[in-house]
Amino acid sequence: MARFAAKIEYDGTSYVGYQVQPNGWTIQAAIEEALVKMAKLPKGEHIPTSSSGRTDSGVHALGQVIHFDYPAPIKADNIRRAMNSLLDPSIRFLEVVDVNDDFHARYSATAKQYIYRVDTQQYPDPFKRLYSLHHPYRYDLEKMSRALESVVGEHDFTSFCSTKTDKENKVRHIYEADITEDKENSELQFRFYGNGFLYNMIRILVGTSLQIGNGLKPENELQRLLEVKNRKEAGPTAPPQGLYLQFVEYKNNPFRNK
Amino acid sequence: MARFAAKIEYDGTSYVGYQVQPNGWTIQAAIEEALVKMAKLPKGEHIPTSSSGRTDSGVHALGQVIHFDYPAPIKADNIRRAMNSLLDPSIRFLEVVDVNDDFHARYSATAKQYIYRVDTQQYPDPFKRLYSLHHPYRYDLEKMSRALESVVGEHDFTSFCSTKTDKENKVRHIYEADITEDKENSELQFRFYGNGFLYNMIRILVGTSLQIGNGLKPENELQRLLEVKNRKEAGPTAPPQGLYLQFVEYKNNPFRNK
Repeated sequence: MARFAAKIEYDGTSYVGYQVQPNGWTIQAAIEEALVKMAKLPKGEHIPTSSSGRTDSGVHALGQVIHFDYPAPIKADNIRRAMNSLLDPSIRFLEVVDVNDDFHARYSATAKQYIYRVDTQQYPDPFKRLYSLHHPYRYDLEKMSRALESVVGEHDFTSFCSTKTDKENKVRHIYEADITEDKENSELQFRFYGNGFLYNMIRILVGTSLQIGNGLKPENELQRLLEVKNRKEAGPTAPPQGLYLQFVEYKNNPFRNK
Repeated sequence: MARFAAKIEYDGTSYVGYQVQPNGWTIQAAIEEALVKMAKLPKGEHIPTSSSGRTDSGVHALGQVIHFDYPAPIKADNIRRAMNSLLDPSIRFLEVVDVNDDFHARYSATAKQYIYRVDTQQYPDPFKRLYSLHHPYRYDLEKMSRALESVVGEHDFTSFCSTKTDKENKVRHIYEADITEDKENSELQFRFYGNGFLYNMIRILVGTSLQIGNGLKPENELQRLLEVKNRKEAGPTAPPQGLYLQFVEYKNNPFRNK
């Protein structure tokens, strides 16, 4: 048994999310099926994987990280090649590395970055509809940018967390949060970099920020929501297809690239 | 009755092609269904549309052109807006203009441009798999570029036409043909600009060019195929998802932009 970490990317469109569940095909199920096939395990045996965190149905990843213990001697890069041959092209193994047995994709992670893409054209771009939120309304970029500054730092994000969560501690530290505008392509891109994110947290932050940008909510709304600690008062959860897990950071980064 | 021309774009992934057919959902069927809904026609009545030419299952368009006669007074731009509200976001009406009754999307067209996108990474990019051909093999760009020069001009393209066609005249004029390489994104892009293209012509030209680039066929292969006029001797038909109808030209261009 040797432990490996893998950096993977996927188009989440056709999956019911990352994590294995009874109804519907997941990215984790696809990966574990391919691992079993590669290892030629007897029927019923299985190679469990752990990820840095689940992603929801329709959410994409550019740099998700997982780890697993492989039951036979093998070179890390041969896992990458075999998996890319076995998997559907909607999932790609970017890099596979040897790690120590105490490496854990989730518990060893120190930070994550997500981006959220918004298509601001009047009618949705056919080629972006599965990869961004269509939001054809006016927005005040400066106002949204200032509002986002108020979530940077260590805060209790109870207002920005789905009530479906089982996590008790709602305190997270956002190191950086900003928006960039790409006028030529009529796109906005939100970026959130922090030590961890609650269930639906980024999608609620984006949904509320767009309400601020549109004038439906005042500029200090994010600040107020941090104080009231009540999910019901926050804006809508932005839909999944704009969200991308961009990268996961580790104290001793096992990958060649960030 | 007044005639309108529309410039449309679509993601062809989920359709069995442009043209109405008995089995499967087509872009034309989606558009005609929306037109009937917009015009509130009695059941069984229908608004036929004509396009500049069909596109196959999985082929995309950035600037397909169609025309139709609308049975009630209406402003062109209101058609655009209504259609974009009624249609699935995989199809978008970019522009709608009034045209004379003698305008015909197909017969009035004087030229067309297609592009064909190739993903040259070792393993397919999950976000490009529906929008390009994955071709991880070596290629000699200079050789392919020189080979493409031989198809520019007026030629009999019998070797580059599906035998399923019913067209007798196989002579077409290609005004420009080239390839550009985007190293940063590991992409190749073929471009063909001409007065018309036969069934599968671009996909066979691309499939054969990639064989030349890979060294499987000699540099003069396209030249030779023009001479032998035999489809069986040409290379494979490249798959549909890399192909885009980019624009259609008319002598008196009815659109504001090319």
